[in-house]
Amino acid sequence: MSDEGDPIHSLVRLLTRLPGVGEKSARRIAYHVLGADPDYARALGETIATLSERVRRCASCGAYTSRVRCAICDDPRRTSELLCVVARPMDADAVERARVFQGRYHILHALLDPLGGVGPGEFPLQPLLDRVAREGVREVILATPPTVEGEATALYLAECFHAEGVAVTRIASGVPHGGELEFTDPITLGRAMEGRRTV
Amino acid sequence: MSDEGDPIHSLVRLLTRLPGVGEKSARRIAYHVLGADPDYARALGETIATLSERVRRCASCGAYTSRVRCAICDDPRRTSELLCVVARPMDADAVERARVFQGRYHILHALLDPLGGVGPGEFPLQPLLDRVAREGVREVILATPPTVEGEATALYLAECFHAEGVAVTRIASGVPHGGELEFTDPITLGRAMEGRRTV
Repeated sequence: MSDEGDPIHSLVRLLTRLPGVGEKSARRIAYHVLGADPDYARALGETIATLSERVRRCASCGAYTSRVRCAICDDPRRTSELLCVVARPMDADAVERARVFQGRYHILHALLDPLGGVGPGEFPLQPLLDRVAREGVREVILATPPTVEGEATALYLAECFHAEGVAVTRIASGVPHGGELEFTDPITLGRAMEGRRTV
Repeated sequence: MSDEGDPIHSLVRLLTRLPGVGEKSARRIAYHVLGADPDYARALGETIATLSERVRRCASCGAYTSRVRCAICDDPRRTSELLCVVARPMDADAVERARVFQGRYHILHALLDPLGGVGPGEFPLQPLLDRVAREGVREVILATPPTVEGEATALYLAECFHAEGVAVTRIASGVPHGGELEFTDPITLGRAMEGRRTV
């Protein structure tokens, strides 16, 4: 029923560019917006349109925040001795939700990916090195994802920090909690075996 | 990493009110908006905020359109002899996608639901009766969903049209294409048996 070039069609096209939103969900969302309280639609629309103006990167760790430094970098109860290096802000969120880490984060907003145009020359290494030196970090925990780019980045960072004499660790990779060995891919199983620990 | 009350948090809260968007997808969408071209975020936000101002209901069938009458009601190749009555605009979209119907639609934007506050007094019957009389409809196809409210609405409309001497049909209900009988609920199977046809 929606004519080509009409407002619903435009919205559906814009929505399908969002992660995890296909044609069907986009249409459902568009109809929901039409049926919803206009104040809600206005609030949602304005929040999206102005988000990037109201959010900046934390001057210290690179996390998204509305202030100069994010809540974690400003929290005196967090130790600066442990620095968890992640690729993206959502990765830091995920570690936070696990409630297992009391140090600080460093968000790269990039992974080493020479084929994708991010070689060592483009990689934001210096801010991380400066921060580790300045804040007296004792241990750098590499929590980049266990993907090709994430592993390459971890390897590269490990070498850089070894050269600086800083302790570096890598998060474990293996069969996830609740996972079935039967359905686990061979690389993950290989890592799980390789990373086995005495119990 | 997102502080309570910050813009990302506000956006996530607004996004989770959309159908099919949970906390995780909302956060992923928010980060995507932050990382995306600001022009895109502005276009998406403004389209959402102003959608209901730019879309109205078709004066004839009730579909959402940016014009006075929708493309289907304005299309002279569609016959006005067949009228497909649906509950929601997305239901008409679904029938259109099936490419099996060359008539016109009537969108109720409501179903009979006395417990939910829509009794015969609140139900938008008159515009439908007027339209059927005005446009010389030969057959009214009731395509409300096979749910309690949808069936009640279909029964109510069938009675109204019988009284007017208009032919009324109801879409078939049965085992969906590709469905396994093993996993089909008893009510659907009952309907499939009841609606069986000579082959």
